[in-house]
Amino acid sequence: MAIVDISIIPIGTGTTSVSEYVAGIHKVLEKNAERVKYKLTPMNTIIEGELPVLLEVIQQMHEVPFTKGAARVATTMRIDDRRDKESTMEKKLQSVQSKLS
Amino acid sequence: MAIVDISIIPIGTGTTSVSEYVAGIHKVLEKNAERVKYKLTPMNTIIEGELPVLLEVIQQMHEVPFTKGAARVATTMRIDDRRDKESTMEKKLQSVQSKLS
Amino acid sequence: MAIVDISIIPIGTGTTSVSEYVAGIHKVLEKNAERVKYKLTPMNTIIEGELPVLLEVIQQMHEVPFTKGAARVATTMRIDDRRDKESTMEKKLQSVQSKLS
Amino acid sequence: MAIVDISIIPIGTGTTSVSEYVAGIHKVLEKNAERVKYKLTPMNTIIEGELPVLLEVIQQMHEVPFTKGAARVATTMRIDDRRDKESTMEKKLQSVQSKLS
Repeated sequence: MAIVDISIIPIGTGTTSVSEYVAGIHKVLEKNAERVKYKLTPMNTIIEGELPVLLEVIQQMHEVPFTKGAARVATTMRIDDRRDKESTMEKKLQSVQSKLS
Repeated sequence: MAIVDISIIPIGTGTTSVSEYVAGIHKVLEKNAERVKYKLTPMNTIIEGELPVLLEVIQQMHEVPFTKGAARVATTMRIDDRRDKESTMEKKLQSVQSKLS
Repeated sequence: MAIVDISIIPIGTGTTSVSEYVAGIHKVLEKNAERVKYKLTPMNTIIEGELPVLLEVIQQMHEVPFTKGAARVATTMRIDDRRDKESTMEKKLQSVQSKLS
Repeated sequence: MAIVDISIIPIGTGTTSVSEYVAGIHKVLEKNAERVKYKLTPMNTIIEGELPVLLEVIQQMHEVPFTKGAARVATTMRIDDRRDKESTMEKKLQSVQSKLS
């Protein structure tokens, strides 16, 4: 299981707003909800699942701005892949919060 | 006002766990809470404020693993700086959620 | 055609050096040299090719530290995918250099 | 001494080309050439120097698209900060190349 945060930015769209693309990206995530957990944050989307599946879903997400007319897309991601113990979004956040209290 | 997501990873610490460093990083954020809003996610910390202030706080966050013994630190960040209208973590998330409903 | 820069960092290896993993990553690139162009920089590896192929190669690169004993790997990447005209590493650099002279 | 790779992307400019901003960013680098080494790659700019200086220069670079009319800028960076031995762009590349030969 890996966790990935992704940011997808269309370039050259003529508008500073990028939220138009979010609905389309969200539909991709909903369609894959059985094999990928996801969480929206103000800066990116975090997804959790098997890495090959995540990369497949990320490709679908990355296509969304193109289908809506963008001609260039800048996508950045961080992959956190831990194999010595099961790591999930929930466990990572709990681990942090336990250190803080 | 800008929003930045930051991930700080110590290299060569001999342990796959990085949550030890989180308490120290959180103290930095608490100390700066009057000028910087922050939010922990499973993959990064998101902070919001004036960009020069954010970069100052990020430098303090980046120092934490060194003060705890790390000799190498890999920090990655995304800056989202929008000046045509006020952008906050809350507004960004609301804007996304309104597109989804 | 897309261009991607990738940084692959093993976590918890007990050494601040990461160059040990580079030979293995380079072998992955050599094995894929017919379908992927690549360039090493001091901070990352840049690869160019069809995006699905790139993501397949990136997965192979990301596996290298695990095969060498790492239990956690942090991989970050930026994808630049432009479809209004052919974009290559060489053309991007030329375009920049022509603006500078 | 730290090394940072930076990518600066204007959002909403109406053109997929970003090379227009490069000349301005390059001028910032030339102006700071005494305290910061830099290298252009097809995907980003790599700079080397004292971290507080680098972050100051990055702020100046990040301002360039705004001075040229952009209203939103997405800047991403990776910081590699190693303190157990001197790390430079040149040494990192040499270290990698020695592993490959």
